[in-house]
Amino acid sequence: MSFAISDLSTIDVSAPDDDIVLVTLNRPDRLNAITSTMISELERVVAAVDLDPSVRAVIVTGAGRGFSAGLDLQSQGAAPGADDVSPTVSGFMWQDHLATLHEKIHRSRKPWIAAVNGPCVGGGFAMSLACDIRFAASSATFGAVFLKVGVSNCDMGTSYFLPRLVGASRSAELMLTARIFGADEAESMGLVIDVVDDGAVVDRALETAQLIRGNAPFATWMTKETMWQTVDAPSLRHALDIENRTQIMCSANGDIAEARAAFVEKRPPNWQGL
Amino acid sequence: MSFAISDLSTIDVSAPDDDIVLVTLNRPDRLNAITSTMISELERVVAAVDLDPSVRAVIVTGAGRGFSAGLDLQSQGAAPGADDVSPTVSGFMWQDHLATLHEKIHRSRKPWIAAVNGPCVGGGFAMSLACDIRFAASSATFGAVFLKVGVSNCDMGTSYFLPRLVGASRSAELMLTARIFGADEAESMGLVIDVVDDGAVVDRALETAQLIRGNAPFATWMTKETMWQTVDAPSLRHALDIENRTQIMCSANGDIAEARAAFVEKRPPNWQGL
Amino acid sequence: MSFAISDLSTIDVSAPDDDIVLVTLNRPDRLNAITSTMISELERVVAAVDLDPSVRAVIVTGAGRGFSAGLDLQSQGAAPGADDVSPTVSGFMWQDHLATLHEKIHRSRKPWIAAVNGPCVGGGFAMSLACDIRFAASSATFGAVFLKVGVSNCDMGTSYFLPRLVGASRSAELMLTARIFGADEAESMGLVIDVVDDGAVVDRALETAQLIRGNAPFATWMTKETMWQTVDAPSLRHALDIENRTQIMCSANGDIAEARAAFVEKRPPNWQGL
Repeated sequence: MSFAISDLSTIDVSAPDDDIVLVTLNRPDRLNAITSTMISELERVVAAVDLDPSVRAVIVTGAGRGFSAGLDLQSQGAAPGADDVSPTVSGFMWQDHLATLHEKIHRSRKPWIAAVNGPCVGGGFAMSLACDIRFAASSATFGAVFLKVGVSNCDMGTSYFLPRLVGASRSAELMLTARIFGADEAESMGLVIDVVDDGAVVDRALETAQLIRGNAPFATWMTKETMWQTVDAPSLRHALDIENRTQIMCSANGDIAEARAAFVEKRPPNWQGL
Repeated sequence: MSFAISDLSTIDVSAPDDDIVLVTLNRPDRLNAITSTMISELERVVAAVDLDPSVRAVIVTGAGRGFSAGLDLQSQGAAPGADDVSPTVSGFMWQDHLATLHEKIHRSRKPWIAAVNGPCVGGGFAMSLACDIRFAASSATFGAVFLKVGVSNCDMGTSYFLPRLVGASRSAELMLTARIFGADEAESMGLVIDVVDDGAVVDRALETAQLIRGNAPFATWMTKETMWQTVDAPSLRHALDIENRTQIMCSANGDIAEARAAFVEKRPPNWQGL
Repeated sequence: MSFAISDLSTIDVSAPDDDIVLVTLNRPDRLNAITSTMISELERVVAAVDLDPSVRAVIVTGAGRGFSAGLDLQSQGAAPGADDVSPTVSGFMWQDHLATLHEKIHRSRKPWIAAVNGPCVGGGFAMSLACDIRFAASSATFGAVFLKVGVSNCDMGTSYFLPRLVGASRSAELMLTARIFGADEAESMGLVIDVVDDGAVVDRALETAQLIRGNAPFATWMTKETMWQTVDAPSLRHALDIENRTQIMCSANGDIAEARAAFVEKRPPNWQGL
């Protein structure tokens, strides 16, 4: 795969396997703390993978000893367009800059998988929640800790994602206490799908990315997008109506016939690209 | 109970205990794969149990070695009304025919319990999700495998039900990978309420149907219907308003007084019928 | 803390630790069954804690051998304003009186923690669900048992809270059967966060209240209120928009600067009051 993005200073992008992109948050001396530059670079990754038909899944992990400590309170930078505005508006632009990245990941046409190593708190925690699937190394620790810096714990989508992902009971306790919790607790509540040894979490995410790669490309995109839309569908009928139309659209590209042929011939299907 | 439905070719309907209906998907040579005829026959069952005041619960299981392999891709048949329409419209009618069955089960006036034995995938999986309660035999295997045939995994309500039933974190991983998972994993995420030995799953479902039968009939109907409505209520106040009106309506038939009398007299209540 | 409420006959209010209020349902001879007077007294507590800036968390428990047996069917009393209305309207007023207490707890500006000892069923169960966080003693038993008295199990918010708190799969089975379940099962589904020995559950709740007390007051209020609002947000973008505005509002009171100073000086932050 020729996927590459130039001029990155806070993240690293590579292709550990065909059609799979690995994004590494790469400020290890700052525990991969998030800056405005990192947000902008991650937005460029979302845009690039979304427009590249060959990319089938994206894995996000952290360089060094952790995933991300959250916002870099020492050198966060300013949001684009915030140079000549009042402090309140600049603050709001910065806040929305952060939040919008997570909306873009959530709406990305490719599945995003968080491979969480070590601390994953605050903005890093929110980023892992915006991903579609999470795996954890034994060393992983999680926490909605915005409260610890004096603002609410409803930040960058945390209050949207967490109750939908694991239920509002556990979510409420974690958000009101801001306590740190470990990989095993995260797995027991279903927040992470599997816990593996330190050093093995990217490989674990890669296994799942490979499963995803084996499925039909357009149908995978439609699964992600439709699934998250129906999470908020106002009724079953609304969900069925979007599902039905999606399926008819998906069935137009020949993948169904190919799946049947592959089944009869006992071989993997050769899916249409996008 | 005199409940019976004539002229069934793909399912079997019986009454294993008073006021409890057992529906057996009955195409064991095809692993109970779903055809248009089966959909129509199941729709007739929903209509019949809904209009029969004596029916208190419905159990669904599969004949032979599994629950259902999903759609019968070799002989699915056409949806009613699809004979003289274009292929796209026929496809959409078929899609909606399938989906609407699950809406009917979801809106049925009686609780539906899936007793899952062996494979329960694709359309069979979606049908089990449309039921109110699920039990599994040790041999049960589950999977949203629509992706494997080239369409999205958002089919027949799967994308509506699964995240609401078990949370969006586990749901997303299952839907994006399309992997098969076993009874124990299904239980650990709360998808099935109990796992029992092979051969015992209908009896396990029957125990719960008997618990349901012991409760007041109209109040049970109102519990099912109101509960699923409030899952999508836009706010707590919307939910309270529908709850409050439901309770006043339920309290008009004398069941409350009967419950008190039965409590004082230390006997089971003799509920009003519908 | 000088927090006190006079003229209480059905509940007891105390301050077991600075800025933390303990509410004890106090009709132990009736297993703390709920009366109209108890509802009104609890409403007074909500109003009082909401207007007292020093209160940081509220714990609710039951005197004697249980949390609450639910409504007192022998002497429930009438709702305020129900003296001169028809029986149906009086019933509706009573129903709404009960339900509205739970809305008030849910919308309270302070986190409410249920410390559940012994039986916690019916209206008592619903009250525990309206709290933000739940802990259980080993002896705790839970149940949505409204069905057992002849009305639906959708009462006082139960049908709103339970599926959101623990998922609709487990919720549906509990609501349709009305069965009693124990502390361990409640913990396994995430309904209660921890199970402790009998006699220790208020202390366990107090630990969490102390964690909450350590966080910034206004940010904590905003976490609770915003979190429950976003549970029902119609989309991620709606949630982000309310989150973003909340954070800018929270950042105006100096708590962020104080958090940074405290971090540098390795001391606990001295938060602004409300």
